[in-house]
Amino acid sequence: MGVKGGAAGGGYSQVVPMEDINLHFTGDFHAITSAHMLLSAMVDNHVQQGNKLNIDPRRIVWKRVVDMNDRELRQIVVGLGGKAHGVPRQDGFDITVASEVMAILCLSKDLHDLKERLSKIIVAYDYSGNPVTAGQIKAQGAMAALLKDAIKPNLVQTIENVPAIIHGGPFANIAHGCNSVVATKTAMRLADYTITEAGFGADLGAEKFFDIKCRYAGLKPDAVVLVATVRALKMHGGMNKKELATPNVEAVKRGLPNLEKHIENVQKYGVPLVVAINIFAQDTKEELEVVREHCAMMGVNVALSDVFAKGGDGGIELAKEVVRLAESGTAHFKPIYPDEMSLKEKIETVAREIYGADGVNYSAEADKALAEFEHLGYGKLPVCMAKTQYSFSDDQNKLGRPEGFKITIKNCRISAGAGFVVVLTGDIMTMPGLPPVPAAEKIDVSDDGIISGLF
Amino acid sequence: MGVKGGAAGGGYSQVVPMEDINLHFTGDFHAITSAHMLLSAMVDNHVQQGNKLNIDPRRIVWKRVVDMNDRELRQIVVGLGGKAHGVPRQDGFDITVASEVMAILCLSKDLHDLKERLSKIIVAYDYSGNPVTAGQIKAQGAMAALLKDAIKPNLVQTIENVPAIIHGGPFANIAHGCNSVVATKTAMRLADYTITEAGFGADLGAEKFFDIKCRYAGLKPDAVVLVATVRALKMHGGMNKKELATPNVEAVKRGLPNLEKHIENVQKYGVPLVVAINIFAQDTKEELEVVREHCAMMGVNVALSDVFAKGGDGGIELAKEVVRLAESGTAHFKPIYPDEMSLKEKIETVAREIYGADGVNYSAEADKALAEFEHLGYGKLPVCMAKTQYSFSDDQNKLGRPEGFKITIKNCRISAGAGFVVVLTGDIMTMPGLPPVPAAEKIDVSDDGIISGLF
Amino acid sequence: MGVKGGAAGGGYSQVVPMEDINLHFTGDFHAITSAHMLLSAMVDNHVQQGNKLNIDPRRIVWKRVVDMNDRELRQIVVGLGGKAHGVPRQDGFDITVASEVMAILCLSKDLHDLKERLSKIIVAYDYSGNPVTAGQIKAQGAMAALLKDAIKPNLVQTIENVPAIIHGGPFANIAHGCNSVVATKTAMRLADYTITEAGFGADLGAEKFFDIKCRYAGLKPDAVVLVATVRALKMHGGMNKKELATPNVEAVKRGLPNLEKHIENVQKYGVPLVVAINIFAQDTKEELEVVREHCAMMGVNVALSDVFAKGGDGGIELAKEVVRLAESGTAHFKPIYPDEMSLKEKIETVAREIYGADGVNYSAEADKALAEFEHLGYGKLPVCMAKTQYSFSDDQNKLGRPEGFKITIKNCRISAGAGFVVVLTGDIMTMPGLPPVPAAEKIDVSDDGIISGLF
Amino acid sequence: MGVKGGAAGGGYSQVVPMEDINLHFTGDFHAITSAHMLLSAMVDNHVQQGNKLNIDPRRIVWKRVVDMNDRELRQIVVGLGGKAHGVPRQDGFDITVASEVMAILCLSKDLHDLKERLSKIIVAYDYSGNPVTAGQIKAQGAMAALLKDAIKPNLVQTIENVPAIIHGGPFANIAHGCNSVVATKTAMRLADYTITEAGFGADLGAEKFFDIKCRYAGLKPDAVVLVATVRALKMHGGMNKKELATPNVEAVKRGLPNLEKHIENVQKYGVPLVVAINIFAQDTKEELEVVREHCAMMGVNVALSDVFAKGGDGGIELAKEVVRLAESGTAHFKPIYPDEMSLKEKIETVAREIYGADGVNYSAEADKALAEFEHLGYGKLPVCMAKTQYSFSDDQNKLGRPEGFKITIKNCRISAGAGFVVVLTGDIMTMPGLPPVPAAEKIDVSDDGIISGLF
Repeated sequence: MGVKGGAAGGGYSQVVPMEDINLHFTGDFHAITSAHMLLSAMVDNHVQQGNKLNIDPRRIVWKRVVDMNDRELRQIVVGLGGKAHGVPRQDGFDITVASEVMAILCLSKDLHDLKERLSKIIVAYDYSGNPVTAGQIKAQGAMAALLKDAIKPNLVQTIENVPAIIHGGPFANIAHGCNSVVATKTAMRLADYTITEAGFGADLGAEKFFDIKCRYAGLKPDAVVLVATVRALKMHGGMNKKELATPNVEAVKRGLPNLEKHIENVQKYGVPLVVAINIFAQDTKEELEVVREHCAMMGVNVALSDVFAKGGDGGIELAKEVVRLAESGTAHFKPIYPDEMSLKEKIETVAREIYGADGVNYSAEADKALAEFEHLGYGKLPVCMAKTQYSFSDDQNKLGRPEGFKITIKNCRISAGAGFVVVLTGDIMTMPGLPPVPAAEKIDVSDDGIISGLF
Repeated sequence: MGVKGGAAGGGYSQVVPMEDINLHFTGDFHAITSAHMLLSAMVDNHVQQGNKLNIDPRRIVWKRVVDMNDRELRQIVVGLGGKAHGVPRQDGFDITVASEVMAILCLSKDLHDLKERLSKIIVAYDYSGNPVTAGQIKAQGAMAALLKDAIKPNLVQTIENVPAIIHGGPFANIAHGCNSVVATKTAMRLADYTITEAGFGADLGAEKFFDIKCRYAGLKPDAVVLVATVRALKMHGGMNKKELATPNVEAVKRGLPNLEKHIENVQKYGVPLVVAINIFAQDTKEELEVVREHCAMMGVNVALSDVFAKGGDGGIELAKEVVRLAESGTAHFKPIYPDEMSLKEKIETVAREIYGADGVNYSAEADKALAEFEHLGYGKLPVCMAKTQYSFSDDQNKLGRPEGFKITIKNCRISAGAGFVVVLTGDIMTMPGLPPVPAAEKIDVSDDGIISGLF
Repeated sequence: MGVKGGAAGGGYSQVVPMEDINLHFTGDFHAITSAHMLLSAMVDNHVQQGNKLNIDPRRIVWKRVVDMNDRELRQIVVGLGGKAHGVPRQDGFDITVASEVMAILCLSKDLHDLKERLSKIIVAYDYSGNPVTAGQIKAQGAMAALLKDAIKPNLVQTIENVPAIIHGGPFANIAHGCNSVVATKTAMRLADYTITEAGFGADLGAEKFFDIKCRYAGLKPDAVVLVATVRALKMHGGMNKKELATPNVEAVKRGLPNLEKHIENVQKYGVPLVVAINIFAQDTKEELEVVREHCAMMGVNVALSDVFAKGGDGGIELAKEVVRLAESGTAHFKPIYPDEMSLKEKIETVAREIYGADGVNYSAEADKALAEFEHLGYGKLPVCMAKTQYSFSDDQNKLGRPEGFKITIKNCRISAGAGFVVVLTGDIMTMPGLPPVPAAEKIDVSDDGIISGLF
Repeated sequence: MGVKGGAAGGGYSQVVPMEDINLHFTGDFHAITSAHMLLSAMVDNHVQQGNKLNIDPRRIVWKRVVDMNDRELRQIVVGLGGKAHGVPRQDGFDITVASEVMAILCLSKDLHDLKERLSKIIVAYDYSGNPVTAGQIKAQGAMAALLKDAIKPNLVQTIENVPAIIHGGPFANIAHGCNSVVATKTAMRLADYTITEAGFGADLGAEKFFDIKCRYAGLKPDAVVLVATVRALKMHGGMNKKELATPNVEAVKRGLPNLEKHIENVQKYGVPLVVAINIFAQDTKEELEVVREHCAMMGVNVALSDVFAKGGDGGIELAKEVVRLAESGTAHFKPIYPDEMSLKEKIETVAREIYGADGVNYSAEADKALAEFEHLGYGKLPVCMAKTQYSFSDDQNKLGRPEGFKITIKNCRISAGAGFVVVLTGDIMTMPGLPPVPAAEKIDVSDDGIISGLF
């Protein structure tokens, strides 16, 4: 409802029914929100009704969620109004896609695993500093009941009637960025080749796909499609956003180090890759050629993809290269860090190896949180970095392939059920706000039920 | 998730699929919640982004909602954290069933009417005291888009495969208590006889069905089924809740004035009625007989209903009496108050005529609010009383047919889109809390997806 | 700092040094504020440091105070920021003159009594509902140390060098309105005749002087000076505030019932009285005469007082009448209600006998509070009514001698140390706000230290 | 009221009357609190009454103060309760000694200068980002009136009847740490030699005395007395706090680098110094000797001071050395940084030169604040560092002469009236809390007015 455009593709490269997918779809997000909020209500109710678990209300770490960009709910005080109306404390809402329940749904193998993970969620700490879990609150059963249907993958189709599965939606900037394990494994059983998307750049979606989802699900990817556009390269080459339609070979060249870094990143995981260029009408041959040349120099093929304009036909070149790579047997997948590394070493490995940072600064809060998580026995978990998608760094203005920067860790949270430590870098926020003119102002539905303004 | 038991019936008197109906069903409540929360986010965003409409943040009256019993959210402070995170102000959550969007969905004739009503919602007042509407915030289109499917009635079936429509759910204690106009009119076009439920007693559901829904939809009911149980009469006769299974004719007699008042109330609307007694296994003949006699004295027939044990067969006697009444042409429906009455007169009419109160006390807030609504031109609207369902009075401990009491009006709110003034009496709250042991603690789902503990 | 003008008199009827008296004076208010705030800090610190007394933070009833009109502090949330920064809860500031410490200082016989009373202050209730006192917090010693000098009466002088004592300042609208017992008793030992002021009208200051201060200090007043002005009578007679300088005998007549009621009130306490009229230049003989006549009809003498213009000489007539009354032996002082009456009976006695009300409405909060105070054994205490000084009723717009009204009790608080129950009527607030143009904007001090704008 | 012990000295080295000095004294702190709080109330009142200056309530930077250790007030939300009760916003209380009014009082030359400075206080920013001052709120006159007497120095005496001036009290850890300019200049006119104290170590009090007070008042100190104790050196040498009474020459030696750094610091300002050792009974000759030797090596004399035990006689050796140094003409005082340096350069100069840090880390908030202050034209102001007094670093556990550390700047505030930028390092807080057992619990006053438990 904030920024125009959904996540269902465009042109001849769409999944349908688009409106439904972009509005309520099959209700999965609603179910996740409900399960999350049920746990919230049960935690506060536990404190209100005698607090047998001795929960310190100041240390309830289970925030609330809503599936809405609503900055007004980022930092709130709840439980006001006196004894009958709860216990006063500070709280806040995240957006549903950042919910640990979303992550758990996406990482669970089945209903049994889902309940196990739900019961491990840490909701608070007691006055002695011990974690209190959803299991101790006895919420996992009811939460799983609410998620019973949501855990089933949703089958949609492309505009050319090819089946596709859409399931789960943890954003790759603030969450682990991958669709569900159940969906991926279902697809692997149904199809010869399974393609899955990992959101945003290879520093975000790919890193978490490799280091979190593959690690937990035992997946071994055979090949990677790295999607690029000439437009984006020009932007990383310093062009003004409004002039990107103008041909500018030099800008493309100046932007190539960004692509180069993404390629290097994928290669660090031991998986062969192809660079797929999503063609725009205004792209010139010269521009495309400098990309192809540069990739060739790095030993990587480029495939032009024109699915937007031509549908499946526009992707045949790319598909052939993907099949070639997948069948080549050259993949030797390995995560970028082992389980045994300390949490700080993991963070620093990602920062240095994947982001190209010189090092990491920790706020006092982050320092304390990481020490506590190690102390509580969560040191073996992977880290789930929350970082802007606009830059390799944590500063969205540093385009291209920035160097000589440090990553600032503002805070860390434990997702003991999902099985990772969330690491908040820079100014990333787990609850976005609406823009000055929200897209919602333009959305409408006619008397006959035809929706407009959604895309 | 709070108290065990859903609203889908029991025994052979059920609609199915029960679990779905009690969990997410077709997602209508989720859609209503989303539409409501979108408006909330847009209002706060408007203030944040320059506040062209000059909204006084202290007078944003559009509270937030969630479909959860969550007392911790009743009174909150939002927008903390500094300039980038909204504007600090007091806010609160109601439960979704109390949302004006729910009422609007249930009172709208079609999508066009829905948008009209949504745009009239008063969300705030500006610094000069003028109301600011959802239309001025430009939210009605996107809200309607989110409600596009929710406005369509949901067809379910009874356990005997008779079609039934379930649509909308404004609780009769805190909202107007009726299903949607669209559902009722759809049923009237499809069936010979349409039965609709109005929640809780005739002081709540029936009063609002007559004075709000019939008034707006132009409905003229032909007959009323007033449902009673011997158990409830015994409780109103002073028996302890735990002993209600013990036969006690005297208690039934002592409880009859309660039924009597409900009968009188229905008669005041000019519609003939039958008293349907839902039979429980422990009801004795003597108990049933005193009820029948008393009703006979009032000129009203009693029909025993045993649908729980026998399905449709158990309701034949009742059905016959309903048909008889409906075909009798004796109905001369008329609301209890005309549009022209002032808001206070309307409140006092309901309090005296329907509740049997001696009068009405207004808090300073209620006084001020009512004067303001009259001043703003909303004096012609009907009133939607929010009152405990446990007593004719606003004190849930006053059973039977209380006398010599006054109704206390704590506060009033305007639902300009739905088209009524909400009048909050006694201690009624528009956000319930969970009990000491929430039903959710017992709810579970097996590895095969079988839900338990829901009923 | 809000409204221009202090409380040190005017013309030749002043005490000096005026500026000091109106600014920091001898620091008594500062000491009271400090003692009060020390207790606040100790209570919250107790909760923070392990909460051995099991205090329910939602039921800390000891609000904070500041000697400033600061509406922004009326309702606040404190203890935010996390575990190290206290416990989140709702709180509020009253103005220092409404502090129970002020009342205790004024009602204490000596340092020993002061400490006893301080230790009895109820600061909170524990989770079981038992009161927690300042004594349990161990604050009374340090509080008394801070008040060691403040309890000593302050000797000032009139402009004619007559000694006067100024000590303590509980406002008569929101507190018990009398100067200290220590000051009064000191004066009685030093002088032949001791005059003490009781703030505002005989419905406020005099009622509390008789029913609280005299009751506790064992004082038996011999005579009462009831101060009136022709201006005020004209205002009560319906004249516009801005036209009061215009002669208007009819308005005076219409205002006389107000004076009549004050006279009747004093007579109910069994003490003889004289009506002293403070003369203004514009008062006409006719106006003064109708007052005199009316009082004569009631058997009360009137004495003109022109101290403002003539100093002590202007008060000789009044002084003679006071001496006559005092020596007459006609006083038979008796409070308006006995200790044994229930709290509600006491409130209703004051409302009916002194205010002329028809009855009393209690809010749910007030009802609950009074029942609790009776239950806790505080039913024997006198009541300290907080009511507007502008009307006998609790509505400041009802001038003259209003009839046919009820007093609304919004809330009650227990001052177990001072020894009374504070009863908040109407919209009276224990923290005033500054006006649109605060007097402070005009106050200045020259480079030589000369203050201007204070009066 | 928190930790036992006041600031009036001990043994024969005391000023009297001690209790008064430690309780209300002459009321200066009360006057400062009142003046500060008046401005707070006027700012909020301005916003409430129409907000002509267009103040953004989220950017009111003028916090409130109270002269009490009260952590519960550190972070609060004020202005709740609706339209009549102010505007909701986040606020907080500092302790009075951290008030800018305290700093202004101490840095003002006279009443005229005081008003000038008060009027320059920045209280908020408007919606366009412009600063709003106390002058625009028209508060400076009334504030100065409240401070009229407080600006006059307070004359007390030592136990041997030597006059001393006590005036102002900005703590050297959280404020600029020096008594008033008026007091110092008064003393310089009255006495042959004027000694002034600068609180805590030479990294705090002395730095600010030189860089702030001397800079503004044009003072040129002739000599410095650097006070040391054998106990403190042993603590810096790693001894457990409870064993400091045990002789331990090695610990003294290990602690000497701390003293060495203080000596170097003073020398950087170009003023000759003597190290005064406050003798404790348990100090051994050997311990004292290693200090003397080390200082001698640095070219600095040591004078033993036994004023605690012997009064003035115990300080004769020290006094002689002070006179020698003062008369030597060797002082060439110069602040550590010039006005022209940027704020960050000033901060880094103090951090490197005085604290011995390797560098400075700025939080995002601090970065933004400093840039804003430079932008608004305050770049020429000196910086007032708020830092723990327990270490040269911002970590109170780093004793001795720490190396290899960085100073973390959490936030910065502008004191445009006082004339400096407050720089908050590490975890320093401008509102302390009470300890688990506050000293106040032991403070008492007898029936005769004798205070106990204060020291």
